[in-house]
Amino acid sequence: MKVAIVGVGLIGGSFALVLKDKGICTEVIGVDNSEKNRVRAMELGLIDRIMTLDEAVAEADLIVLATPVDSIPLLAVKVLNRVNERQVVIDMGSTKQELCEVIAQHPRRGRFVATHPMWGTEYSGPEAAVHESFAGRTVVLCDTEKSDPDALKMIEDIYTRIGMPIKYMSSEEQDMHTAYVSHISHITSFALALTVLEKEREEEHIFDLAGGGFESTVRLAKSSPNTWVPIFMQNKYNVLDVLREHIHQLQIFRRMLEKDDAEGLRQMMSKANRIRKIIK
Amino acid sequence: MKVAIVGVGLIGGSFALVLKDKGICTEVIGVDNSEKNRVRAMELGLIDRIMTLDEAVAEADLIVLATPVDSIPLLAVKVLNRVNERQVVIDMGSTKQELCEVIAQHPRRGRFVATHPMWGTEYSGPEAAVHESFAGRTVVLCDTEKSDPDALKMIEDIYTRIGMPIKYMSSEEQDMHTAYVSHISHITSFALALTVLEKEREEEHIFDLAGGGFESTVRLAKSSPNTWVPIFMQNKYNVLDVLREHIHQLQIFRRMLEKDDAEGLRQMMSKANRIRKIIK
Repeated sequence: MKVAIVGVGLIGGSFALVLKDKGICTEVIGVDNSEKNRVRAMELGLIDRIMTLDEAVAEADLIVLATPVDSIPLLAVKVLNRVNERQVVIDMGSTKQELCEVIAQHPRRGRFVATHPMWGTEYSGPEAAVHESFAGRTVVLCDTEKSDPDALKMIEDIYTRIGMPIKYMSSEEQDMHTAYVSHISHITSFALALTVLEKEREEEHIFDLAGGGFESTVRLAKSSPNTWVPIFMQNKYNVLDVLREHIHQLQIFRRMLEKDDAEGLRQMMSKANRIRKIIK
Repeated sequence: MKVAIVGVGLIGGSFALVLKDKGICTEVIGVDNSEKNRVRAMELGLIDRIMTLDEAVAEADLIVLATPVDSIPLLAVKVLNRVNERQVVIDMGSTKQELCEVIAQHPRRGRFVATHPMWGTEYSGPEAAVHESFAGRTVVLCDTEKSDPDALKMIEDIYTRIGMPIKYMSSEEQDMHTAYVSHISHITSFALALTVLEKEREEEHIFDLAGGGFESTVRLAKSSPNTWVPIFMQNKYNVLDVLREHIHQLQIFRRMLEKDDAEGLRQMMSKANRIRKIIK
């Protein structure tokens, strides 16, 4: 199988590696509008050939869209305009509603499978691509009733061979759940990093003391704005909903501490401990 | 050297293990006001003998206070009342101002070294004690000019043998910095867990999707209220200061998203990316 990957950064590059590591494809064609990324992806052995989008779509059995989410809907339409009835197109973005709405009436909609593999790191670009990725994480497939059965089967087989449990839901559900389990964590991390950077001028101390839980909560603040601004914008209403609730919880916390309400704090924290059941 | 550890939970138990693993002490005496903890600590081999506080203080060369921070100041006074001019007492708590103020005028103040080893996990109790701990993390020693040189030297040697870089600062500085690099991360995690648990009823989905960064930001929400309520209360003013700034940052984020201010979000996130320099 020949695979074209559009956007050879962290996600596209790592997916290229896992496809080759698992023997799922024989050749990976790289497409990227950054000259620098194309060259690095070749040097790093992520891709076998560089092509333009048109050339790649003409040759590939599977076209993978792994660009920032604001570019995916139009890219999906352009690619669907060019594919035949045997080619398959997927995206790997973190948001799905906008995309699925844009391609909903496309005559080749059946060739598209909307996928969100729940894997990533805080790094970006071709250099961030790693071999050990995706396996063991859930992949969400959205609105699969709109995909042709053979296209869906091809993608289910690929993700299964990679070792990813598959979860099915509507694009609306996926965007709501992802706001809770991914997007809010990133906002919290960005805001926490800013809090510390704003208030703490002696960076040396932060560095020295950074063993008290800070790293794990602030790690995501290293993530690229190019990836995340479009995600927050596309999932605006769900993200705002969760963000308002989160600020509300922090304000409750603040008021209890201001009033020396130890018992109230204890109850809130015991309630929060229920997360132990969910995150092992 | 004979060491008495008061509070044989996560921190005291792990410290007992590392002292024995490194050959620093020959015997660990365990003191704990919970019968259950005492028995478990013996069963798990964390301690060699169980004693009352008075018995332990009479025998030990070094007395280690590893109880929740609200009990440490009075405990420190009681132990200092009983020690001779060769014994040494340390605490391992996350806050220092209250403690150092309480013991400031004690005639045996010189025998006390206030220490905050920056290590811990989100688990608690004797069962949470682990062998691989402390090494590589910073330990903060506070107000060391108040400690006798021989007592300070003993403690510096112990932490150095464990492999912990030592940082010196006043108890005021330590409490302020720790609010930034540890305490606020815990509050954020607790609030994030509550946000998701409040709004998200289908816990199955959270579980399935929990690969998107959520685990790392919410991990600390598993932490024990028995440990953390006293820390927040004792460090109230510093914690409130950081918490207010953090809520302010989240509100800026929210307003930018409400107004579709992509450029503003990008600038905030790029600024937050400076944390890359601090956290490798």
